Amino acid sequence: MAVYTDVSFEDLEKLLTEYDIGSPRSFKGIAEGVENSNFHLQTDRGGYILTLYEKRVSADDLPFFLGLMEHLATRGIDCPQPVRNRAGKNSIVLNGRPAALLTFLDGVSLRKPDVMHCAQAGEALAKLHAAGADFKPARRNSLSVTGWKKLAGDTRADADTVQAGLASLIETTLAEMDAWPTALPSGIIHADLFPDNVLFTDGKVSGLIDFYFACNDAFAYDIAIMLNAWCFEPDGAYNITKGKSLLSAYRQYREPTLQEAEALPILARGAALRFLLTRLFDWLNPDPAALVRPKDPRDYVKRLRFHRNVRNASEYGL
Amino acid sequence: MAVYTDVSFEDLEKLLTEYDIGSPRSFKGIAEGVENSNFHLQTDRGGYILTLYEKRVSADDLPFFLGLMEHLATRGIDCPQPVRNRAGKNSIVLNGRPAALLTFLDGVSLRKPDVMHCAQAGEALAKLHAAGADFKPARRNSLSVTGWKKLAGDTRADADTVQAGLASLIETTLAEMDAWPTALPSGIIHADLFPDNVLFTDGKVSGLIDFYFACNDAFAYDIAIMLNAWCFEPDGAYNITKGKSLLSAYRQYREPTLQEAEALPILARGAALRFLLTRLFDWLNPDPAALVRPKDPRDYVKRLRFHRNVRNASEYGL
Repeated sequence: MAVYTDVSFEDLEKLLTEYDIGSPRSFKGIAEGVENSNFHLQTDRGGYILTLYEKRVSADDLPFFLGLMEHLATRGIDCPQPVRNRAGKNSIVLNGRPAALLTFLDGVSLRKPDVMHCAQAGEALAKLHAAGADFKPARRNSLSVTGWKKLAGDTRADADTVQAGLASLIETTLAEMDAWPTALPSGIIHADLFPDNVLFTDGKVSGLIDFYFACNDAFAYDIAIMLNAWCFEPDGAYNITKGKSLLSAYRQYREPTLQEAEALPILARGAALRFLLTRLFDWLNPDPAALVRPKDPRDYVKRLRFHRNVRNASEYGL
Repeated sequence: MAVYTDVSFEDLEKLLTEYDIGSPRSFKGIAEGVENSNFHLQTDRGGYILTLYEKRVSADDLPFFLGLMEHLATRGIDCPQPVRNRAGKNSIVLNGRPAALLTFLDGVSLRKPDVMHCAQAGEALAKLHAAGADFKPARRNSLSVTGWKKLAGDTRADADTVQAGLASLIETTLAEMDAWPTALPSGIIHADLFPDNVLFTDGKVSGLIDFYFACNDAFAYDIAIMLNAWCFEPDGAYNITKGKSLLSAYRQYREPTLQEAEALPILARGAALRFLLTRLFDWLNPDPAALVRPKDPRDYVKRLRFHRNVRNASEYGL
């Protein structure tokens, strides 16, 4: 098995005595998720994902993540639903790890979303922002400016081995983050709504997954993350048609303020820096037990350089 | 994705235009199989496995493996069935690799099979041996004595870094293989029927998988492999109750000859050597792209030492 923590069928059988979800039909480790160990379980009643939370997901945050998924579903968002066991708990401990059993969502994630998919995803983000409005628990974004400073420190010595001048680019960008906006309209954000995490069925969004970076932060920062993740071409060029498509679909469900529009360039720069830094850290510190190869941080160097030349939000298509 | 060769949904969509199997509902890389890249595909018509064949599986052998699975199904063996595309082909090339789309089998593989499971598995092996009888194509066992000699040479220099005295144990055992029997009743064997490759549903065998070591060789060698794989406890002790259970279930469907019974000790020793050597090689040459951690070769050192003290087949429960 290529998962961090192994779960045998015998472990599963024991676990299932605590749940009312039918008899197992198949059970397989799946090659998905950088952070966790995931297993696909099919029973005679339906499909489930068993997730064991590893290193980056803190057990203390689980009630927030699982509670959020339950809340969002009651507000019409299609996302995995934690299954409660006979004792009423939506999380357990399995093989020494915090774990949860979640409903499996049909749909596929796209490697090369087109302009229409970007619109669908922008709409989904706006609806997510609205649906989170009355969710009471809160979680600080641990991967905002303070977190970036730590990652920059941890990667400074070796950054230039990945690309000449990278340490200096990170340092300069980080210094600019002193102007990071802190009074923008905020609420629950997904914070990682990459194409990997949006499922499509027949060209329509059929679900959002992987809420394990969700937190309270600026809505416009979530938009900035999506512009980075959905609107650049493989050669590193920004595709303004995709940007316009994503942004105008978002605006049909939630209209940004002028302040948010003005902040978009720095937010996009910060978002590129965030993914550059986590990818750089994982690149320099590969986990031999990981089943996912580290992603090339240089994709985000290109994006960051693009954002550093952007003067206003119209260049993104807003 | 933690598979050797990645397949995007877009790659899959293009591929599916060549097949008549319905619309995709989900598509995920699965953490399974040491040798290949595997993806689970669910369409509105059923479940499938897309396999891309890597290094150890030669494209030249694919017609044998796929043809065998088709043949066995016509003889009542539940095993994955290659799906033919609109052009009538059961294998294709995808992302530079030979590939095949196979039907997905329900069932789970057990980590700790009990005595009854051993009986089920022994029965399945005997039925497999009978079902292969009239399969015309043939494939030499590339992992028999000649293959072991090559692996022993490739691992000799570093074997003792894994366990003191290992190089010498391998050399001595290999010398004994000069007495390897070559005139035993032969036919199609699975050659890798570990608990991983036997699926159970509700305590009954629901399918056999992973035929990529299948070849023409002695039936009793296949039995010897199963005694190694099913009848030892985690502490290294041989469980003769499991051995008796597996062997007597086998005998209900195919009675071994006296010659086969007499050969069992050397066959079991050879089988332990075969898995010791391939595990040792993978342990000494880990593939950083592999999603499966190398298995500890020392489990098979224990088995081999046990077999070296066995004087006749009754010690296995025959």
